[in-house]
Amino acid sequence: MKSVVIGIDIGGTFTKLGVVDKEGNNIASKSISTQTTDNNVNTFLEILNGELKKILHEIGSGYRLIGIGVGAPNGNYYSGTIEFAPNLQWKGVVPFVDLLKKYFNIPIVLTNDANAAALGEMLYGGAKGMKDFIIITLGTGLGSGIVVNGQVVYGHDGFAGELGHINVRPDGRECGCGRKGCLETYVSATGIKRTVYKFLADSLEPSSLKGVCFNDLSANMITEAAIKGDKVALAAFEYTGEILGSKLADAVAYTSPEAIFLCGGLAQAGDFIIRPTKLYMEMNLLPIYMNKVKILPSGMKDNNVGIMGAAGLIWHELEK
Amino acid sequence: MKSVVIGIDIGGTFTKLGVVDKEGNNIASKSISTQTTDNNVNTFLEILNGELKKILHEIGSGYRLIGIGVGAPNGNYYSGTIEFAPNLQWKGVVPFVDLLKKYFNIPIVLTNDANAAALGEMLYGGAKGMKDFIIITLGTGLGSGIVVNGQVVYGHDGFAGELGHINVRPDGRECGCGRKGCLETYVSATGIKRTVYKFLADSLEPSSLKGVCFNDLSANMITEAAIKGDKVALAAFEYTGEILGSKLADAVAYTSPEAIFLCGGLAQAGDFIIRPTKLYMEMNLLPIYMNKVKILPSGMKDNNVGIMGAAGLIWHELEK
Repeated sequence: MKSVVIGIDIGGTFTKLGVVDKEGNNIASKSISTQTTDNNVNTFLEILNGELKKILHEIGSGYRLIGIGVGAPNGNYYSGTIEFAPNLQWKGVVPFVDLLKKYFNIPIVLTNDANAAALGEMLYGGAKGMKDFIIITLGTGLGSGIVVNGQVVYGHDGFAGELGHINVRPDGRECGCGRKGCLETYVSATGIKRTVYKFLADSLEPSSLKGVCFNDLSANMITEAAIKGDKVALAAFEYTGEILGSKLADAVAYTSPEAIFLCGGLAQAGDFIIRPTKLYMEMNLLPIYMNKVKILPSGMKDNNVGIMGAAGLIWHELEK
Repeated sequence: MKSVVIGIDIGGTFTKLGVVDKEGNNIASKSISTQTTDNNVNTFLEILNGELKKILHEIGSGYRLIGIGVGAPNGNYYSGTIEFAPNLQWKGVVPFVDLLKKYFNIPIVLTNDANAAALGEMLYGGAKGMKDFIIITLGTGLGSGIVVNGQVVYGHDGFAGELGHINVRPDGRECGCGRKGCLETYVSATGIKRTVYKFLADSLEPSSLKGVCFNDLSANMITEAAIKGDKVALAAFEYTGEILGSKLADAVAYTSPEAIFLCGGLAQAGDFIIRPTKLYMEMNLLPIYMNKVKILPSGMKDNNVGIMGAAGLIWHELEK
């Protein structure tokens, strides 16, 4: 029998599940809704358990489940809890691992989605063989996973790696965390939308993006416009890369990583975001770090990053 | 025979040596000049060797030397080199460990002074039992040592932990590194001198510091003035603590440490620097980190921090 794990990637809207072997083959996967009509995590767990049992039945008896990894916003590695996640229905502190253990009596580990992505990148992606790197997830917000000496940095309380909330401007854009000027208000799928709107307010440049309302605008549309040469879209990428690059120069002064990986929705823009990020990072680096740090797209297949990260988390744990 | 190590703390002007046992007793110590008339590291090593042999002879035959630890500016843990240190006479890349091994055929390890201070704090100071903390040395510049999971963060190239050069203001004060607005241009013994001069330029407040020229002014004098209620000195500490505190809030978002230790000359000011630093750090922290992170003075005897750090480095290495 082949040993496999289950990777679970919990998002605000959807939860993705996948059965993954040690070599990183995604044997089966599925997406279910994270939301239930009663906002109750126990209802969700009932549904999740049903789906997992079904998926295990479908792949047949040639596999043995040996662990479950979970990536979740505000997930705490030490306690296995999801704490005060603004984008989830479940309020307060949810003891997710303990609750899931009622259904599965095997090792279960949980961490935040960006830390999980870092482990996925290390086991299955572009960070194979690297001991010091950072992963930045550019989705609705900006998440980060920091790896030092081959280990994810969890910090004394399990909450390390919140680069989305380092300060860019003391009195800058309002952030969902209640403060102002956080990095993710500029650098994320939502951040670049805000930047497009800033440029549409400030300049008279013609732009196809003038026909799209804020709610409908996506990072993808901005990339599409940039491909067609839209000057507002191009300027928005330059502005985003300048802020990200200058802050990554600071990040290098902390842990001196070999590479920084960009993944998530906004990273799909490829060189539109990577080129200015690299440029402004180099412009702001202390000389001893210059031309040493790679800025790379994720080496994992993008639609599975969440599942592979969560699977990587539990494989990494089982190897300890 | 009792096993001992030698800790060597190389500074721009003086080099301090000490024989230290595992329990952190400094059995003998000495200070020699780092500078030689010929600017040659080999001349320095000859003198250093002579002094070390003398000190070992003096303590007698009850001790066995089992290792040497060296803390030096721009010291690289991986290569044992001192690279382009602006405050030392030796230019370029100096293979210090290899050169010292010609005199002593025992384990010798080198790192930068702030990383060594972190190991000293962990073995002999206030960080005993802590696995995640940061040490900030506030001397001529600002040095930093970051500990994650009980290990000093060296980064992929051995140069991690240069918080003195994270950016505070994009077009701020000129820094010795050639860039502008680095943290150490505001927060260090030199930084607070510059701040005093800024306030003397901007305000009409009477101050005893108006009678001191820049070259003569020291962090100690500013503390003395603050004790006497000098408003310029007090404002300078507030300003310094505000900048340090806001940047330490960012530092917490990286590695979520249990405590941040302040040591070195400016830290002698005690609460004049610790109080505003703590206040502004808390004001800028992401809510999940609030009221969790201690700001502490070093727990080591201050005149020996360098020696104890270097000794801690080699004891830590010998235990691996």
